[in-house]
Amino acid sequence: MTYLLTDHQYGKAETRLVRVIRDAARHELRDLNVTTAMRGAFDDAYLTGDQSAVLPTDTQKNTVYAFAKKHGVASPEAFGLALARHFVHDVAPIDGARIELEEYAWDRAIAGGREHDHTWVRRGPEVRTAAVTVDATGEYVIGGVKDLVLLKSTGSEFAGFLSDEYTTLPETHDRVMATAVIAKWRFSTVDVDWDAVFPVIRAHLIEQFATLQSLALQQTLWHMGTAVLDAVPEICEIRLKAPNKHHFVVDLAPFSMENPNEVFYAADRPYGLIEATIARDDAPPAGDAWKFSAGLA
Amino acid sequence: MTYLLTDHQYGKAETRLVRVIRDAARHELRDLNVTTAMRGAFDDAYLTGDQSAVLPTDTQKNTVYAFAKKHGVASPEAFGLALARHFVHDVAPIDGARIELEEYAWDRAIAGGREHDHTWVRRGPEVRTAAVTVDATGEYVIGGVKDLVLLKSTGSEFAGFLSDEYTTLPETHDRVMATAVIAKWRFSTVDVDWDAVFPVIRAHLIEQFATLQSLALQQTLWHMGTAVLDAVPEICEIRLKAPNKHHFVVDLAPFSMENPNEVFYAADRPYGLIEATIARDDAPPAGDAWKFSAGLA
Amino acid sequence: MTYLLTDHQYGKAETRLVRVIRDAARHELRDLNVTTAMRGAFDDAYLTGDQSAVLPTDTQKNTVYAFAKKHGVASPEAFGLALARHFVHDVAPIDGARIELEEYAWDRAIAGGREHDHTWVRRGPEVRTAAVTVDATGEYVIGGVKDLVLLKSTGSEFAGFLSDEYTTLPETHDRVMATAVIAKWRFSTVDVDWDAVFPVIRAHLIEQFATLQSLALQQTLWHMGTAVLDAVPEICEIRLKAPNKHHFVVDLAPFSMENPNEVFYAADRPYGLIEATIARDDAPPAGDAWKFSAGLA
Amino acid sequence: MTYLLTDHQYGKAETRLVRVIRDAARHELRDLNVTTAMRGAFDDAYLTGDQSAVLPTDTQKNTVYAFAKKHGVASPEAFGLALARHFVHDVAPIDGARIELEEYAWDRAIAGGREHDHTWVRRGPEVRTAAVTVDATGEYVIGGVKDLVLLKSTGSEFAGFLSDEYTTLPETHDRVMATAVIAKWRFSTVDVDWDAVFPVIRAHLIEQFATLQSLALQQTLWHMGTAVLDAVPEICEIRLKAPNKHHFVVDLAPFSMENPNEVFYAADRPYGLIEATIARDDAPPAGDAWKFSAGLA
Repeated sequence: MTYLLTDHQYGKAETRLVRVIRDAARHELRDLNVTTAMRGAFDDAYLTGDQSAVLPTDTQKNTVYAFAKKHGVASPEAFGLALARHFVHDVAPIDGARIELEEYAWDRAIAGGREHDHTWVRRGPEVRTAAVTVDATGEYVIGGVKDLVLLKSTGSEFAGFLSDEYTTLPETHDRVMATAVIAKWRFSTVDVDWDAVFPVIRAHLIEQFATLQSLALQQTLWHMGTAVLDAVPEICEIRLKAPNKHHFVVDLAPFSMENPNEVFYAADRPYGLIEATIARDDAPPAGDAWKFSAGLA
Repeated sequence: MTYLLTDHQYGKAETRLVRVIRDAARHELRDLNVTTAMRGAFDDAYLTGDQSAVLPTDTQKNTVYAFAKKHGVASPEAFGLALARHFVHDVAPIDGARIELEEYAWDRAIAGGREHDHTWVRRGPEVRTAAVTVDATGEYVIGGVKDLVLLKSTGSEFAGFLSDEYTTLPETHDRVMATAVIAKWRFSTVDVDWDAVFPVIRAHLIEQFATLQSLALQQTLWHMGTAVLDAVPEICEIRLKAPNKHHFVVDLAPFSMENPNEVFYAADRPYGLIEATIARDDAPPAGDAWKFSAGLA
Repeated sequence: MTYLLTDHQYGKAETRLVRVIRDAARHELRDLNVTTAMRGAFDDAYLTGDQSAVLPTDTQKNTVYAFAKKHGVASPEAFGLALARHFVHDVAPIDGARIELEEYAWDRAIAGGREHDHTWVRRGPEVRTAAVTVDATGEYVIGGVKDLVLLKSTGSEFAGFLSDEYTTLPETHDRVMATAVIAKWRFSTVDVDWDAVFPVIRAHLIEQFATLQSLALQQTLWHMGTAVLDAVPEICEIRLKAPNKHHFVVDLAPFSMENPNEVFYAADRPYGLIEATIARDDAPPAGDAWKFSAGLA
Repeated sequence: MTYLLTDHQYGKAETRLVRVIRDAARHELRDLNVTTAMRGAFDDAYLTGDQSAVLPTDTQKNTVYAFAKKHGVASPEAFGLALARHFVHDVAPIDGARIELEEYAWDRAIAGGREHDHTWVRRGPEVRTAAVTVDATGEYVIGGVKDLVLLKSTGSEFAGFLSDEYTTLPETHDRVMATAVIAKWRFSTVDVDWDAVFPVIRAHLIEQFATLQSLALQQTLWHMGTAVLDAVPEICEIRLKAPNKHHFVVDLAPFSMENPNEVFYAADRPYGLIEATIARDDAPPAGDAWKFSAGLA
C-alpha cells in the first residue's frame, strides 16, 4: 500500500497589520489581517522532516511587515498581489502562493464638526476580503465582503413551495428577510482599480436586496449576483453564501393582541443557508484560485 | 451553622426583539436584546422549591413582546422603564426589577441614490446599552455604549512612569493609541430625552479621545468622562472601562529599514485595562442601580 | 461643580502563561491566563497625566513571567497571592492589587496504553478561576469554575408558579434541565490546600445537580451551594450564576408521532438566568474582594 | 452575455438536536448540530422565484427531528446517511443531499462514587464531525474531529529551514509544539462500525503527536495521517488542518534569570497553518463528497 501526499500548503495565518501613512498632517490608515500560504514541492518536510525547502512562516510574517513599509498598502488586492508575486518569483522552491486578506473599515472621527486628521472610529460588522493566488498558470484575484448584514421589513414572500409529509410551514406574502451576506467575486484580470470597484459592488448588492420584491432568498441572490456582473465587467464569477436569518412573527393572540408584522423574534439557530455561484458563460478558468482557504477570504 | 440566601435575582436573558413601525411607507425599526431580572422575596423557591411567588421567565419573555406591541419602543431606556415599572407595580411579589438592553444600530440602505423605505444595513461593532432598575427606593437609569473602537495614529505619549526591577518598557512620545470603550452613565432623573442625549454623549467621547494630546489612557478617560458630565447635566456619574489595545511598532532594522511609526503589529493579548468612575460631587445615591449584571449592560 | 474620581484600577489583562516543570522525564504543566490590576492613589495619572506613580502594565506582565520562573505556579490561588503580595508590599504607591486567573485543564495523552510524559490533550469547556485581592484590610481569595456544563434528562420539574395575564407556560413534572454553571466561592482564610479543595467542590456541585429531584433551578442552586459550604469549612460564601439552557420537547404530533421527552430542540436564546449568593451567617467581611472584575474571574 | 447558475445548494443549518433514550433507568444521550443541504435542479427558484421544486428548509428541520424519533441516532454518520437517503430517494426533485453533523461529547456525572443514570457533564473543546453526501454517483461519508487541542512540552524541533533576506528565526532543537487539529477522513465504504472506529482514529492521532520526535509540524501531520490509514482500512483519505499555536520562550535575561524552556507566552495571532491531504493510491473517486461546506464538518 502506498500513501500519497496530495494537496498541501503551509503558511502564516492572521498577521495583523496596521499601516499608517503620515507624510502629511492628515494621516491615512489601512488595517489588515493577512494570511500567507505557500504551495510547491515541500514533500520532504512531511515525509522525512527535511526543512531545507521550507521558508519559515515567521519569515512570511516578516515579509508582510517589510512589504507594508517598502511598497505600502494601496488596496488589499494590490498588496496581496505584491506579496504573492514576491514569494513565487523570488523564493526558489515556491511554486504558488495564496494570500488571504481581511480589511477592517474605519471612519474618520468627527471633532469640532469636521473630520479629524489622525483619529478613527471602527466601522463594522462587515469586512472586506481578498484572496490572491499566483502560480505557474497565472494570477488570480478574488475580492469579497463578509458579514454584510441586511434586513428588509417587507417586500419578501415565500409561497408555492414543495410540500411533503413533514411540511408544516405556512405560506407568506409578507415577511422580514434578513441575511449576513458572504460574497466573493473573481476578477478575470489584474488590471483593475481595486478600491474603485469595491464600493460599486457593495452598492449593487445592497440595492438589489432592497428593491427586488423577493419570492425567495435564492431569487434575491441571483439578482444581487447578476447586478454585480452587469456593473463590473472585470468580474467573471461571483459566489454568494447567505444565511436566512429568520425573524419570526410573535404570536400575541394569547394576550388578545394582533401582530400584523410588527413584533418579531430574531432567532439564532437553525437558519436557512443558501449557497450559489453565478458565472459568465465565457469566464476564464479559475485555476487553483478557489483551492483551500484558511477561512479568512 | 446557618446559611443565608443573600443577594439573588432571576429572569429571562437575551430576548431578541425586532420592532417594526409600518404605519407609513417609510418603516421604522428598533432591534433590541432584552434581559429582565426580578428581585424580591423569592427565598422559598430556593429553600423548599415552592414556586408560588415566581413569575416564570417565559412570562417575562412574553411580556417583552406584548409591551413592544402595546407601547412600542421609543428608546431602550424608555422601554426598559415601562417594563420595570410593570413588573414592580403590577406583579405582586416582585419588589425590584432590573432590565438590561442592548440596541443594535442599522443604517438605511441606499437604493437609487436615496434612503430606502424598508431596508437597512447593520452598523457595528458598537452597541448602545441601557440598564434600568426600579424598586421601592426609586427609579434608576444607566445608559451606555460598548465596543466603541477608537484609534489615533499619533497624539499619544507614555513616559515618566514608575520603574522597578521588572520594568523594561521604553518611554515614548508618539504612539498609536487604540481602545474599545465600554462606557456606562447614570442619570439622576428619568425625565430625559433619551434618544437626543445618546449621540451627544457619543460625540463627546470621540472628540475628547481625538483632540487631547494624551499622556496616558487614564488621562484620556478622565477627559472623556468629564466632557460627558459637562455636556449632559442629567448625568451624575460615568463609568469607563477601556482596554489599551496595543499596536507595536514592528522592528524592521533586521531588513535595513526604518519604521517611523508607519507599520504596526496589532496585538490581541495581553492588553492594558483601565477602569475608572467619575462622579459629580452631588450625585444622588445609586441604590441598587449597579447591582448584578447579566453582562449585557 | 466638582467632579470626583471615585473607584478606579488599572493593570494588564490576559497575560497568557504556560509554565512547564521539566526537572524529571515526566513533565508537569500549568496553563494560565493572568490579569493583574493595581489600586491606589493614581489620581494624578487621570487628572494631569502625571505617570510617576504608575507601574506600567508592561512591567506587570514581566512580573507575571518572572514570578512563574522564580516561584513556580503551585496553584492559581497561590500564584495570585504571591503576585498580589509583591505588588502591594514591594512597589511603593500600590495600595491594593487584584489578580484574576483562569486555568485551562489538560489531560495527559495516552500513548502505548499509558500516560505520556510530556504530551497533553486539552480538556474543556470548563475553566477554573481565581480572584485574589490584597490590600491594607487583608487578603481575600475567591476560587471558582465557569462553563461547567451540566444536563439531566429527567428529575426536574417546574410547576405551581405564579401566573399573570402574560403567562402561557404549561406546568411540567419531567423536563430536561441544563446549565453552564459559573460559581465563585470566597475563602475565609488563605491557609488552604487549594488544589485539594477544588476537585471536592466541583464534585459536590455536580452531585447535587444530579441527585436532587429539582422543583426549580433555584432550588438546585441552593443545594449545590450549601453542599459546598458543608464540605469545605474554609469557604464562607458562594455565588452562583446559572443560565437555564432550555431544551424544548419538539412537537411531533403533526407527523403522527408521540414524543415522550425523547427528542429535544436545544435553544440558544433567550435563556433563564438565576443568580444567587449563599453565605454562612458568620462570614467575615468581604472587603473589596468582589470589587471590579475584568470579567475573567 | 449569458450568466450561468453553476454550483448551488440550499438547506437548514445548525438544527440543534438532543436525543434521549429512556427505555431503562440508565438513559442514553446524543447531542448533535445538524445541517442539511439539498442539491438538484432548483434553477427556477433563482431565476424566476418559482419555488415549486423547493422543499422548505423548515421541512428539513422537521425531518431531522422526526427521524431522530423514528430511527434514533445510532451515530452521527448513520444518522446523516439515513437523512441523506431519505431526501434523495423520497423527495422527487432532490438529486443530492449533504448532511453535516457536529456531535458534542458528554461524560456521565459521578454521584456517590458511581456513574449517574441521567446526568452528564459536557466534555470539550473537541467536537466530532461527519459529512455525508448521497447523490446519483453514490454514498460518501467523511468523519472527523475538530478543536482537538494537543501540546507537547518537548520532543519538537525546527531547524535546517530555508533562509532569505527576511529570515530572522533562530533554529531550535527543543520547543513546545501545540495545535488544534481539524481532521477529516473519508471512508471508502458505508459498511463501517462508526462508533467503534472513531476512538481508534482519535487515539492514533494523539499517539503519533506524542511519540514522534518532530522535525516540523508537517512531519507530525504525515505520521498522524498515515497512522490512521494504517489502522482503519475503511479510510481512504485524510485531510489535516493544523494551526501551529506558538508558545514563545519568555526572555527573562533582563531580570537576570535563565529560562530553559520553562516559562512560555502562549500567543494568539499570527499562527502557522499547515494543511495537507494524505490518500491511499487506490482511493476511490470522491465525487462531490468535499464540495461546499457550511463550515460545520
